[in-house]
Amino acid sequence: MPPLFKDTLKVVNVGLGAFADNVTAAGGECVRVQWQPPALGDRDAAWKLAQAFANESIDRANEVAFARFLEARPVLAGIATAREVVPGMGSGRRLVLHAGPPIAWTSMCGPMRGAVLGAVVLEGWAGNLEAARRLLDAGSVEVEPCHHHAAVGPMAGIISPSMPVWVVENAVGGNRAYSNFNEGLGKVLRFGANDAEVIERLRFIARDVAPAIEAALRNLGAIELKPLIAQALNMGDEVHNRNAAATSLLVRQLGPALLASSFARERAAAALAFVAGNDHFFLNLSMAACKCVLDAAGDVPASSMVTAMSRNGVNFGIRLAGTGETWFQAPANAVDGLYFPGFSRDDAAADLGDSSITETAGLGGFAMAAAPAIVRFVGGAATDAIHHSLRMRAITLGSNPSFTLPSLDFAAVAAGIDARKVLDRGIAPVINSGIAHREAGVGQIGAGVTSAPLACFVAAIKALVETIGSRGTE
Amino acid sequence: MPPLFKDTLKVVNVGLGAFADNVTAAGGECVRVQWQPPALGDRDAAWKLAQAFANESIDRANEVAFARFLEARPVLAGIATAREVVPGMGSGRRLVLHAGPPIAWTSMCGPMRGAVLGAVVLEGWAGNLEAARRLLDAGSVEVEPCHHHAAVGPMAGIISPSMPVWVVENAVGGNRAYSNFNEGLGKVLRFGANDAEVIERLRFIARDVAPAIEAALRNLGAIELKPLIAQALNMGDEVHNRNAAATSLLVRQLGPALLASSFARERAAAALAFVAGNDHFFLNLSMAACKCVLDAAGDVPASSMVTAMSRNGVNFGIRLAGTGETWFQAPANAVDGLYFPGFSRDDAAADLGDSSITETAGLGGFAMAAAPAIVRFVGGAATDAIHHSLRMRAITLGSNPSFTLPSLDFAAVAAGIDARKVLDRGIAPVINSGIAHREAGVGQIGAGVTSAPLACFVAAIKALVETIGSRGTE
Repeated sequence: MPPLFKDTLKVVNVGLGAFADNVTAAGGECVRVQWQPPALGDRDAAWKLAQAFANESIDRANEVAFARFLEARPVLAGIATAREVVPGMGSGRRLVLHAGPPIAWTSMCGPMRGAVLGAVVLEGWAGNLEAARRLLDAGSVEVEPCHHHAAVGPMAGIISPSMPVWVVENAVGGNRAYSNFNEGLGKVLRFGANDAEVIERLRFIARDVAPAIEAALRNLGAIELKPLIAQALNMGDEVHNRNAAATSLLVRQLGPALLASSFARERAAAALAFVAGNDHFFLNLSMAACKCVLDAAGDVPASSMVTAMSRNGVNFGIRLAGTGETWFQAPANAVDGLYFPGFSRDDAAADLGDSSITETAGLGGFAMAAAPAIVRFVGGAATDAIHHSLRMRAITLGSNPSFTLPSLDFAAVAAGIDARKVLDRGIAPVINSGIAHREAGVGQIGAGVTSAPLACFVAAIKALVETIGSRGTE
Repeated sequence: MPPLFKDTLKVVNVGLGAFADNVTAAGGECVRVQWQPPALGDRDAAWKLAQAFANESIDRANEVAFARFLEARPVLAGIATAREVVPGMGSGRRLVLHAGPPIAWTSMCGPMRGAVLGAVVLEGWAGNLEAARRLLDAGSVEVEPCHHHAAVGPMAGIISPSMPVWVVENAVGGNRAYSNFNEGLGKVLRFGANDAEVIERLRFIARDVAPAIEAALRNLGAIELKPLIAQALNMGDEVHNRNAAATSLLVRQLGPALLASSFARERAAAALAFVAGNDHFFLNLSMAACKCVLDAAGDVPASSMVTAMSRNGVNFGIRLAGTGETWFQAPANAVDGLYFPGFSRDDAAADLGDSSITETAGLGGFAMAAAPAIVRFVGGAATDAIHHSLRMRAITLGSNPSFTLPSLDFAAVAAGIDARKVLDRGIAPVINSGIAHREAGVGQIGAGVTSAPLACFVAAIKALVETIGSRGTE
């Protein structure tokens, strides 16, 4: 008998668990190593991936893109009406922006349809929701992605011409990014609600909240957003699903400035109370800041750095710095999370919103170690939060020293997702997310953790290598 | 040869390290267990300690004291002038309250002397600092501990009759606690500074800051302090040396309420800007809340629960629930910390202030796991912060479910220090602390971690057992 069968075996099983099961069933011990073939086992993609790793022009391009991303300095430059500042929204177009990659009105999910209808009523293009539906069915209202207009919006992500928007400017590169205002929780437009109360709240935001903050900003001057976000990370936020600290820090600046302004006192009080009453208020500013720093790296030929990840309620889409405005899409993954009482996964819409721009910038799920309290909202234990942050180091170009994680002894957050590494390691970017009801009008029903589908990265790497052609493999 | 000398030895060394050193020197391996005799090796104290552990009346009394402490509900009831509300401060007495156990004017440390002189000038009892010194040397101004007047103050802890004070009331037991207002960092009275700028800031606080907050509180009603502190612990504060979140949360409430009030707008703006500009503003409120919940357990005969720990710049003093208002004192330990540039341990005053009331209540150093960012201020690594919180479990009666530590998966903070356990285990309560310059007028020069001297606990246990007499050992 060969010695192998006489000795005690020490088995390490790599990949498929069924082999290990047999060893265990026979009374043996087995260390299981999680592994799957790179590029989802797609031979063509794996070959392209190998070419991409061998391609030094990609490495050089990534250095450029990552440096532009790191050095970008987003500042809150002001507030304006969307039609005045958002590129392509002026000149009286009946245009509604939405979250995620492009999607036709007829293909939209429930919450996004509800939100678009609400926006059409808000704009006065239709007198009621039924009339709004007829306009959309007739093709008389255009719908385009926020991302095509340098903008981002959470969940349905609706921005229509009369809405006030945050204007965030990159003090280094000069590029600007925009986002709408956060309406709070409950029945709100971004979750597909669109009744009179929702519309009236949007009017209040445009009439009182935005101008009051504008008045405060005139006293404060431009607010640097990186230090504010860095401080919030040291106060338990990951600035995606948890913005309690960032919102508090913002209110702490706005309060004295608003008192020192001449803005009508009663309206100022109502506006500040609205802001102070919403722990998520800072989210949209966080998103605009992330969009701004990623757009700084938005067009670097050959780079495999991810510059956008977004969901339209049907598909998940990503963009690379090296392929510019092209989207690479796949069906969105389910969200694994905690549901509010009375709701379950059956009620959930598919993963939705531009807010995964925060993860694209190394925040949100990537910075979960900063926000152990988030697990109370999205499920899991504090150690899970730390593991998410550590795991993301395997798929990024580096880390961002502007943002540190106290529980990891102030290690910098992993940032700059390299699509090659995602595909090679089979590790999908982690994303914190709210969960919308699949029907319009119900609103948020939970929150949880999900991930970007790897199929997007397969398509992106194939396209990137084809774009570069044979030049890179010289 | 006996087998002991032929086998490989496995040595565990308990206590004195010199024995282990010999084993190691001879090439052996040795596990070192840190141990010291209970009660610092004081045989009389150790015998009293054994009696105290055997005494069921102490256990029963501790249950009562700990329950009163846990159920106390501190609310910010309002703001008033010290002479109007602080017990024993009215009727025109020339009385200045100070931190720590009682100490005569002639024995006070530099910063406390400086602060007392400043208070005498502030009150107008003397026209300048030299005249103030003559008054004090002549015994014409009384000095008494804050703790003797249901009050607490950080560092020098000076409260004089014209100062505004926070009024914190226990909504369950009805007892009240008071604290002065936080002046910010730099040259301030509590660190012994007393020049014109310091006095003018104190006048501004009394004239504008306190009345503005009072006006806001009239709109807000009483603020529950436990939920606010609980939230701050989930946002990186330990509410002693770090109050950035608690201060932000307070400003977030005050801002809209102040706008909604009719308080003169310009003064309101200056007042709120002052509060918002000081990360430590909430400290004094945190201290008053802790004093309030501990005083609820302040007089429970036979209890070995610690109800106060405080420093007067010379001695450290503690009180037990079972021995009421008696102080047990010992020279204060040094503070191990980080010094501001240009300063070193040689410049430091001894450990000072009533702020260790936060540790007595299970916050501050006991809750350091909530505040990894604090190590940037007091030195050490994030893991040190967690270890401090875990170690304190060995010396407490239980934990306080009102306050949780996110990084420890929301474990409740250890609280209710049992003087018996401190002495038995030789584990001193950990304390976060600011460091004052030893001369009056310079101010804060650093921050760090220190501990309560065990000798206080030796004296306290001896007295407690003597107080109970032979009844308990029946």
